[in-house]
Amino acid sequence: MPTSPSVTLPELKELRAIYNVQKPYTRVTPLIPLEDLSNEIQGKIYLKAESLQKTGAFKFRGAIYRLLQLNNNERARGVIAYSSGNFARGLAAAGEILNIDVHLVMPADAPKIKIQSAEAHGANIKLCHEFEPTREEAAAQLAHQLSQQHGLTLLHPFDDPELIKGQSAVALELSDQLKELEISCDNLLCPTGGGSLIAGSSMIFDDKSTQLFAVEAEGYEGMTLSIEKGVRARAHGKTISSCDALQAISPGKNNFEVIRHTEVIGLPVKESYINQAIQHAASHLKLILEPSGAISLAALFQYPEKFRGQTTVIIASGGNIDIERYADIISH
Amino acid sequence: MPTSPSVTLPELKELRAIYNVQKPYTRVTPLIPLEDLSNEIQGKIYLKAESLQKTGAFKFRGAIYRLLQLNNNERARGVIAYSSGNFARGLAAAGEILNIDVHLVMPADAPKIKIQSAEAHGANIKLCHEFEPTREEAAAQLAHQLSQQHGLTLLHPFDDPELIKGQSAVALELSDQLKELEISCDNLLCPTGGGSLIAGSSMIFDDKSTQLFAVEAEGYEGMTLSIEKGVRARAHGKTISSCDALQAISPGKNNFEVIRHTEVIGLPVKESYINQAIQHAASHLKLILEPSGAISLAALFQYPEKFRGQTTVIIASGGNIDIERYADIISH
Repeated sequence: MPTSPSVTLPELKELRAIYNVQKPYTRVTPLIPLEDLSNEIQGKIYLKAESLQKTGAFKFRGAIYRLLQLNNNERARGVIAYSSGNFARGLAAAGEILNIDVHLVMPADAPKIKIQSAEAHGANIKLCHEFEPTREEAAAQLAHQLSQQHGLTLLHPFDDPELIKGQSAVALELSDQLKELEISCDNLLCPTGGGSLIAGSSMIFDDKSTQLFAVEAEGYEGMTLSIEKGVRARAHGKTISSCDALQAISPGKNNFEVIRHTEVIGLPVKESYINQAIQHAASHLKLILEPSGAISLAALFQYPEKFRGQTTVIIASGGNIDIERYADIISH
Repeated sequence: MPTSPSVTLPELKELRAIYNVQKPYTRVTPLIPLEDLSNEIQGKIYLKAESLQKTGAFKFRGAIYRLLQLNNNERARGVIAYSSGNFARGLAAAGEILNIDVHLVMPADAPKIKIQSAEAHGANIKLCHEFEPTREEAAAQLAHQLSQQHGLTLLHPFDDPELIKGQSAVALELSDQLKELEISCDNLLCPTGGGSLIAGSSMIFDDKSTQLFAVEAEGYEGMTLSIEKGVRARAHGKTISSCDALQAISPGKNNFEVIRHTEVIGLPVKESYINQAIQHAASHLKLILEPSGAISLAALFQYPEKFRGQTTVIIASGGNIDIERYADIISH
């Protein structure tokens, strides 16, 4: 049960203003009805294709907004962040557009496409070969160090309060699309790692007519455990998962505070459903999804009965996957 | 130079009404800015992703509209058409929605995905193993025969006057999107086989502020030759081409009449640029395109200098490609 948290939720008016600040830089991503799957599940399913966002993932929205919030001094000095990839790529592109130096610490095992494209946008990249206590925490520590050494503004990849508001743009745009199409949404499924997408979404879908689901990779279900226990908890993080963007083992402090305003259900998804979802998106939708971006769709395959007879929107959060690996998944 | 043709062009008001009739069944497909390619070409490039249309290609728009035009008697008896694939799939899905029997003649070498998905939508399929004088003409003849035997309404896959108006929906929707974004479009590139997409587009973009290009597979550049000669001409059709949806060797009679109202430039594209375009769409856009759907993008790679300093919209008309083949293309 939600208890009264310390974070004050922004008003819709503020989030609308933030959306409008981003809009000249971002793409409106389509809301696609999945007729075949709707028939199969006997419900109505729609997919919000954030894989078609600039830089191939929703993270660009928060990144550009966060950089637009910097003061002149911070802008001139540049920023540093650690990220497994999508925030890195989004931040690098945003920095290139706004002419702000971007430094990134990325885990050495991040997908090549994420590292190379961040580089192509002119970011300075330092690979982190340390994976203890976790790959995220080791990279975070190194970024913190470098930020102090070089006077760079340190940006958190998912738990920065302004960034979370920036990420709410996905849900705000979705909510506008649903209104225009006169669709009443019973369930909204958000891929969840550190939790900025589900937190941002809970700022928009806050009236209990829509049930929010935090969809997590099994072994990394920190948000699910935290919701169950009522305090931030850690998943074990020992499972081998293809969802490289969802490997935070604990939700961000701010994200967890934010989602406690609403009722969120945690939904851990088994690895075996991920490839099925990627294949479905390829053959039925002509969309390339990365494993982390396909996890909401995978949740429908694992838990079809939960969504029967209802209207469900799944967010496909990203499409950045190494092409050789992708070719291998779809052809098996 | 265009001469005065016999076909009367429909007014915008009529085409708007047709669009509205289709709209409950179709998807609004996104217009995506291609920033990376824009930088490379030093112009502004946008892609209209009709690969995300229901059934994975723009053909669904014309198909559903055409079926909605049938009278009760025709509806009850059913329809027959020949098609290399995308019209087949679109018509099958439209028939399923409207509860109209759909019979299809398809060339035996059509992509499996197109045959199987038309079947999955409940169409009766007859494969045509005859490829003389051309694969399209042999299939057309068989469809004509069956239509007479069984009292089915014969639909032309690309040269039916109502169907052409139905296909204008792509360009009408595009034109609305351009207006909303305040983009003035210098060039519009349409993949062209029999010519219904370029003909439909020329009904909307008819004021000479936008230059239309009929993009064709080399060896199948019937429209290009016809424009040059001022009368319908035939390409040799002997080249091996991956563009299975663009292998009409001559434009439809009505399509050719329609496009002569405006100035259209033919643009034959070499096979070697097709895979490059498919790979670009995968890695930069997260979109799965079939060869025929990627040909406008391929034209930008072959003729970059033509589009320098200008604003160009390319239509990506479809994404129906066998997955094994697709995996092979993107991983090489």
